[in-house]
Amino acid sequence: MVKVGVLLSGCGVNDGSEIHEAVLTMLALDRLGAERVCLAPDMEQRDVVNHLSGEATAESRNVLLESARIARGEISNITAVSASEIDALILPGGFGAAKNLSDFAVAGALAEVQTEVLRLLLEMHRAKKPLGAICIAPAVIARALGKFSPLLTIGNDPATAAVLESFGARHQDCPVDDIVVDEVNLLVSTPAYMLGPGLKEIVTGIDKLVRKVVELAA
Amino acid sequence: MVKVGVLLSGCGVNDGSEIHEAVLTMLALDRLGAERVCLAPDMEQRDVVNHLSGEATAESRNVLLESARIARGEISNITAVSASEIDALILPGGFGAAKNLSDFAVAGALAEVQTEVLRLLLEMHRAKKPLGAICIAPAVIARALGKFSPLLTIGNDPATAAVLESFGARHQDCPVDDIVVDEVNLLVSTPAYMLGPGLKEIVTGIDKLVRKVVELAA
Repeated sequence: MVKVGVLLSGCGVNDGSEIHEAVLTMLALDRLGAERVCLAPDMEQRDVVNHLSGEATAESRNVLLESARIARGEISNITAVSASEIDALILPGGFGAAKNLSDFAVAGALAEVQTEVLRLLLEMHRAKKPLGAICIAPAVIARALGKFSPLLTIGNDPATAAVLESFGARHQDCPVDDIVVDEVNLLVSTPAYMLGPGLKEIVTGIDKLVRKVVELAA
Repeated sequence: MVKVGVLLSGCGVNDGSEIHEAVLTMLALDRLGAERVCLAPDMEQRDVVNHLSGEATAESRNVLLESARIARGEISNITAVSASEIDALILPGGFGAAKNLSDFAVAGALAEVQTEVLRLLLEMHRAKKPLGAICIAPAVIARALGKFSPLLTIGNDPATAAVLESFGARHQDCPVDDIVVDEVNLLVSTPAYMLGPGLKEIVTGIDKLVRKVVELAA
């Protein structure tokens, strides 16, 4: 049975993992008979956003504890997971990828990847194990693996694509129901809610991504 | 286009809506071409649970604001929604149904349904519009509509089934991949995570439930 890590970044599109993308990733893994290993960094979120108004609140929340909501409690601290324990790793989207797994949302071209996330991504790449990235999460991969000229998609937004290219990545436009595959670096990406418009569209791209990641891992 | 309400109760299995069940309900609605209307009560949660340890915390959170995470911000206060505006209503499970939409988790056989939830459920029943209930949410329906002898399932747990029957409901055992239909009261229920074991099993029952609810509404 293939073991696939799912790297979460909180619980909610505006300050954590995009919930629909995370659940559809888990559903696709389950249907393919892959074992899922949810993980997240044990750190404070960059912010907590009221998802009704869209405004930041004065609260503080922990990325690992909020991610545990999506994982139904079955989740590990990323520090406890090395590339030797999983066959592949998938990053769902949501602002958490750009606020917690990296600071891409605020730093843009000057973004850095969170230390433990960077460690695991580099370990996976060195071990030739595939990575999947959904929605805005390819920005994290681009920053971490830019020197390997990764081929990625975040949909078709030229400004965002240009920042990924400033990291060393190559960007390829892609519709919501499809994937971009980098066969050399073993990367798979899909735009999901970078393009929307809804669940029945994003599920097609996510299903293709998960299937390809599992195929590359086998 | 059929308009289907999705009544949420927070965000997380232990103190709100079960996230997987809520997302799979929305996915099924989207695939059937139904319009989704997310709603939740604007009230404090009964408690906030650390989903890693399973223990209650000192935090307080609002049911509507946390539900907005699953709904990506597109959600209404239940007070603003009457039965005339939707063709059907589905309640995903999670402890939120038994802690926020009702107090079933703490009061058991003495449980009461939250005022606005009770108002909407009675309106829907009176208007002969179908209701769907997933996992533990049939307990809310049983309490609200007990005098109409509703036929429901919460899986196969005899103790929980007995409490539903004390409300006036009739309980029917049901496997995770199937539904129980009350053609008289227009009720559909499925056990989902009352039985588990995972996403690929619960999605079958939830798909059947959503399809039947939409069929009854059309």
